Amino acid sequence: MMVNKKRISCYSVCLLTSIALNVFFINNSYLGSELKKQKLSWSQEAAAEAEAVASISCSGHGRAYLDGLLENGKPICECNACYAASDCSVFKTDCAADADSGNPLFLEPFWMQHAASSAVLIAGWHRMGYTFNDQSFISRELENHIRRVHAVARNAVTNGKYIVFGGGSTQLLDAAVYALSMNTSSPARVVAAAPYYPLYKSQTEFFQNMHFEFEGDASLMNNSSDNTVNVIEFVTSPNNPDGKLREPVSQVPLTRAIYDHAYYWPHFTAIPAPADKDVMIFTISKLTGHAGSRFGWAFVKDKEVYENMKSYISQAEMGISREAQLRALKLMKAILHGNGTEIFNYAYKKMSDRWKNLSEIISLSKRFTIQELPTQFCNFFQKVRGPSPAYAWLKCEKEEDTNCDAVLRAANIIGREGSLFDYDERFVRLSLLKSDDDFNLLLHHLNKLVAQEDGPKTI
Amino acid sequence: MMVNKKRISCYSVCLLTSIALNVFFINNSYLGSELKKQKLSWSQEAAAEAEAVASISCSGHGRAYLDGLLENGKPICECNACYAASDCSVFKTDCAADADSGNPLFLEPFWMQHAASSAVLIAGWHRMGYTFNDQSFISRELENHIRRVHAVARNAVTNGKYIVFGGGSTQLLDAAVYALSMNTSSPARVVAAAPYYPLYKSQTEFFQNMHFEFEGDASLMNNSSDNTVNVIEFVTSPNNPDGKLREPVSQVPLTRAIYDHAYYWPHFTAIPAPADKDVMIFTISKLTGHAGSRFGWAFVKDKEVYENMKSYISQAEMGISREAQLRALKLMKAILHGNGTEIFNYAYKKMSDRWKNLSEIISLSKRFTIQELPTQFCNFFQKVRGPSPAYAWLKCEKEEDTNCDAVLRAANIIGREGSLFDYDERFVRLSLLKSDDDFNLLLHHLNKLVAQEDGPKTI
Repeated sequence: MMVNKKRISCYSVCLLTSIALNVFFINNSYLGSELKKQKLSWSQEAAAEAEAVASISCSGHGRAYLDGLLENGKPICECNACYAASDCSVFKTDCAADADSGNPLFLEPFWMQHAASSAVLIAGWHRMGYTFNDQSFISRELENHIRRVHAVARNAVTNGKYIVFGGGSTQLLDAAVYALSMNTSSPARVVAAAPYYPLYKSQTEFFQNMHFEFEGDASLMNNSSDNTVNVIEFVTSPNNPDGKLREPVSQVPLTRAIYDHAYYWPHFTAIPAPADKDVMIFTISKLTGHAGSRFGWAFVKDKEVYENMKSYISQAEMGISREAQLRALKLMKAILHGNGTEIFNYAYKKMSDRWKNLSEIISLSKRFTIQELPTQFCNFFQKVRGPSPAYAWLKCEKEEDTNCDAVLRAANIIGREGSLFDYDERFVRLSLLKSDDDFNLLLHHLNKLVAQEDGPKTI
Repeated sequence: MMVNKKRISCYSVCLLTSIALNVFFINNSYLGSELKKQKLSWSQEAAAEAEAVASISCSGHGRAYLDGLLENGKPICECNACYAASDCSVFKTDCAADADSGNPLFLEPFWMQHAASSAVLIAGWHRMGYTFNDQSFISRELENHIRRVHAVARNAVTNGKYIVFGGGSTQLLDAAVYALSMNTSSPARVVAAAPYYPLYKSQTEFFQNMHFEFEGDASLMNNSSDNTVNVIEFVTSPNNPDGKLREPVSQVPLTRAIYDHAYYWPHFTAIPAPADKDVMIFTISKLTGHAGSRFGWAFVKDKEVYENMKSYISQAEMGISREAQLRALKLMKAILHGNGTEIFNYAYKKMSDRWKNLSEIISLSKRFTIQELPTQFCNFFQKVRGPSPAYAWLKCEKEEDTNCDAVLRAANIIGREGSLFDYDERFVRLSLLKSDDDFNLLLHHLNKLVAQEDGPKTI
């Protein structure tokens, strides 16, 4: 009896332990939704591989990637600009604050917080063919989701408009220039109002042909009295670099506009009303921050222009990567989760905070100013809201500071010089889109520069 | 005592069951390698989602995809050309055999057999930036793996050559034309020896500028005595459509060749020696069958040509999708697994079998012939091997069959007409690259057509 009692007690403990273990496994394998319940087979290894890489610690100042270079068979940490060491833990003193590129890494933390909803697994046999089932190069599911995101953001009227996918907005800008100039009687003159995004000039000149040529500043087209000249104007709204909402400035009658709406999201600007233009170009780069995906889309009203743009994409590269489209779809789904407003709230708050921090420093300066942006009613937030631009358009106000870029570089700040935007060298564009590390260093260096304005402090 | 015995027996059974359950979980969660052992968190849902879609039965005549259109919240089956019904189980009688496009679905079964090694999971924050850590648009890991695949295939000398990534070989063809014509004294004439791939003409004409124009058949350039004329010749080897290995035919002194080596893999041709030319273009489409990825690469010897091609890619779309690059890397890794020869053996066997089957039917015909291809020593197999081309270049031999495409269409066979290749309409290209369903139907219809040559049979 004694033995039996002990035996029972042992059984009980063993059973309870074992059941507890069962519960542990069940909880971990089959928790929550159906998908969380599902046992994995062929996808297990790829998923585990991605998690293993994600778990490599880079001290919050870098990242390891699945396709990173290897050391001892493990991807190495790729450190943010001013950090070094194998785990990115060492800050490089005297490191310059690089505010040059529009790399939209400010949204990276958002996606790390939404790891489960934004991950996507691509099977080896996923969409191997040239076309989708409807013989197009376009995922209809992705198209539908893009239209829904615009409906949530209330930033564009997409009904009754065709859609074209491109390799970033970059490719679509060129496709639009081709499309709008294909049937003009004389070569179209391509213009943009200065200060304008440098690619308009470099791309149009690189691809120049008999149908179009780059003319430069759109405001110079105002006095043309020639009614037969064809003008294509890039209208960037809000503008890169200065964040201002824009309309075409060319007053030539035969002007057709390409609206570059890369930044027309609640992240960066008040949305006075949904945009409703003939050719509007958007990019995932400035919506979700995925610049590396090279994925953009254009809404086009006119069928012929649409067909021409489609021909361009077809001749240039037979449609856009299925992997990029699949991932874009997953990101759109993640955005639309819940009521779909979370990313806009997050991005607006972040960009708005950055703008406030920067403004505070500049307000203490007599040497530098930044552009003034109005508070304005926003169709998305349904209220008046303050500015949150993607870039500061900084001006050196002192008479002798004619080359503002040089002034900043001397203070260890790298911006993009005004002359690249076909504008005054007294101006420099500072990117506010980059990682927290980059932005904080920019603030630090600017702070120091402004503090030195009254000469070195003595006790 | 009785009660206790029963209790013990119950405990024993429960414990055994519970332990068995644990063993089941442990086996399934922690089997095999480290990665198979790893517990998943944020990646679980994406992996399960991909497996759920993969498990949708489309009767082997279709496929459901993660980004497919939905019905009741589930992606629908996308059926192969001649199949219908929600599970693709219904064969459409009188369906035409479509052998038009070069859709390389013949490799789909290979990837289904290699599901685990070819799957890739993309985290939401994977490579959001414009550039890799070295400021380039190119994954060095992918570059290294591509060079290794060529070393295994023994089809190209890649040492001492620069690499450029493009949106399929399609984009690189145009980039090469730009690069080779940028600094010529007069517009370059772009040529290719007929029969040639239709895109050379359509793309060059679409993007024509002051630096180059499409001239047509390369053989027409032979008599030019002008020593100052610049010629760019597309040399497709093996050739699309006829599978022949080629060298430039233009005899103009200032001829520069763009070698389109899309099909220069053991899949499709004997490799007499590794290719070692100045500009060589390859594509993942015809290596792994992933046409939808839009990913290609060029090896370039000359630094200036390389820089020009890089500028092209940069101005056109700022580099190639990170998702496409990551997946290409996973596919290259899968290929290189083991000794790296499996895919070449598989693809050669499949294409060679298809060619044999087709040849057998055509050998019974007096009305049709297909191109003759030699058996030849192959540097990869290290032995003499028979043909396995990507396309049949079918000729209608009967005097009255001047339009061969029409003859085939009347027999429910869709090919690509010879005139599209700037050639005789007596020829039609038949794709041998498509799915088993497509290829088998082609054989069936051809068989029927050939059997009818002697008129309807009577008893």
